[in-house]
Amino acid sequence: MHQLSADMRACIEECLRCHSTCLGTAMNHCLEQGGPHVEPQHFRIMITCAEICQTSAKVMLIGTRHHQHTCRECAEICEECATSCARLGGMEECVQACRRCAESCRRMAA
Amino acid sequence: MHQLSADMRACIEECLRCHSTCLGTAMNHCLEQGGPHVEPQHFRIMITCAEICQTSAKVMLIGTRHHQHTCRECAEICEECATSCARLGGMEECVQACRRCAESCRRMAA
Amino acid sequence: MHQLSADMRACIEECLRCHSTCLGTAMNHCLEQGGPHVEPQHFRIMITCAEICQTSAKVMLIGTRHHQHTCRECAEICEECATSCARLGGMEECVQACRRCAESCRRMAA
Amino acid sequence: MHQLSADMRACIEECLRCHSTCLGTAMNHCLEQGGPHVEPQHFRIMITCAEICQTSAKVMLIGTRHHQHTCRECAEICEECATSCARLGGMEECVQACRRCAESCRRMAA
Repeated sequence: MHQLSADMRACIEECLRCHSTCLGTAMNHCLEQGGPHVEPQHFRIMITCAEICQTSAKVMLIGTRHHQHTCRECAEICEECATSCARLGGMEECVQACRRCAESCRRMAA
Repeated sequence: MHQLSADMRACIEECLRCHSTCLGTAMNHCLEQGGPHVEPQHFRIMITCAEICQTSAKVMLIGTRHHQHTCRECAEICEECATSCARLGGMEECVQACRRCAESCRRMAA
Repeated sequence: MHQLSADMRACIEECLRCHSTCLGTAMNHCLEQGGPHVEPQHFRIMITCAEICQTSAKVMLIGTRHHQHTCRECAEICEECATSCARLGGMEECVQACRRCAESCRRMAA
Repeated sequence: MHQLSADMRACIEECLRCHSTCLGTAMNHCLEQGGPHVEPQHFRIMITCAEICQTSAKVMLIGTRHHQHTCRECAEICEECATSCARLGGMEECVQACRRCAESCRRMAA
C-alpha cells in the first residue's frame, strides 16, 4: 500500500484502533457495568463511533477524494463519543482512542 | 422498529438496495465485462457507494441525529456513482438504485 | 444482478432484513427497555446476528463459493438470536426475521 | 479491553491488518495493474478476504463464542487469498498479511 501517504496510513490506523476500542468497550465493559453505561444516548454514540471509524478507514483505503467528508464526520462523532465516555469515568482507553482519532481525521479532512 | 418514521424506513430500504446493487454489480457485471468497467475511478466510486449506503442505513438504524450528515454524504456519492454508471451504459439497474437512494437520502438530510 | 439465482436473491434479502431488524431493535427497543434486554449475553447475540447477516449477504453478492460456510454460520447464529428474543418476549418482529433468515441460509448452505 | 486475552488481541490486530491490506491493495494496486489483477476470481477472493477479516475481528470484539467459527472460515479464506496473490507476483505485502492472519485465526479456532 505504498500509494498512501504516511499521514493517511496513520489516520487509517487510528480509525481502526478507535473502531476496535469503541466496539470492544461497549460490548464488554459497558454491558457488564450496566446503569449509565447502557443508557441509550451513551451506548448509541459508542456504536455510531465504531461504525463511522470503520467507514472512514475504508474510504481512505478505497482511495476516492470522499475521505475528506467521511473524515470530517468521523472527527465530529469521535469528539462526541470522547465527551460521553469522559463524563462516565473509567473509560480512559476509549476517551484517548477517540481523541487521537478525531485529531488525525481533522488533519485528513482539511 | 415502530420507532422509525415511514420516511426513515423507506430511506433505510433504499440504502440497502443501493448497497446490494452496487456491490453485486461491481463484483459480477463489471469484473466480467472488464475494460472501462474496471477502470479505477469507476470501480472505486461503486465500492465507495456500496460502503456509504451501508453506513448510512446503519446510522439511521442506530438512531443518532448524525444520520443527517451521513445521509447528505450518501446522496452526493450516489449521484456521482449514478453518473459514472450512466456514462458506461448497460448499468441501468445501478443508475436507478443510486438515483432513488440519493433522492431519499437528500430528504433525510434536510 | 441477473446472475444471481432467485433463491440467492431471496436469501440476500432475508439477511439484510434480519440485519436491520436486529440492529434497529437492539439499539432502540432493547436499550430503552433495559433490564434483561441489555443483559450481556442477549445483547451480544443480537449484535453478532446483525453482523453475520450483513457478512452473509455480502459474500453472496461478491459471488465466491464461500457463501456456503458463511450462510451455515449465519443460520446457526440466527437460531440462537431467535431463541434469546423469544425467551424475553415482546420481540416478535425480531424472532420472525431471525427464523426466516435461518431457514433461507440453511437452504443456501446445503 | 483488558478482558481479552493476549492471543485474541493479537488475532484482532492481524485480522484488521489483513483487512486493510487486502482492501487497499485490491482498490489501488490491482485496479491500476489491470490484466490478471482484475480477473474475477482473484479480485473476488481479495474482497471476500477483506470482508471476512473484518467480521472475524468484530465477532472477537463483541465477545461471543462464535468467533471460533468465524476465525476458522477466516483462516481458510486468507489461505486461498494468499495463494491467489502469490501466483500473480508483486503482492508480497498481501501474501504475508494473509498468511499471518490465517495462522493467528487457526489458533483462535482451535
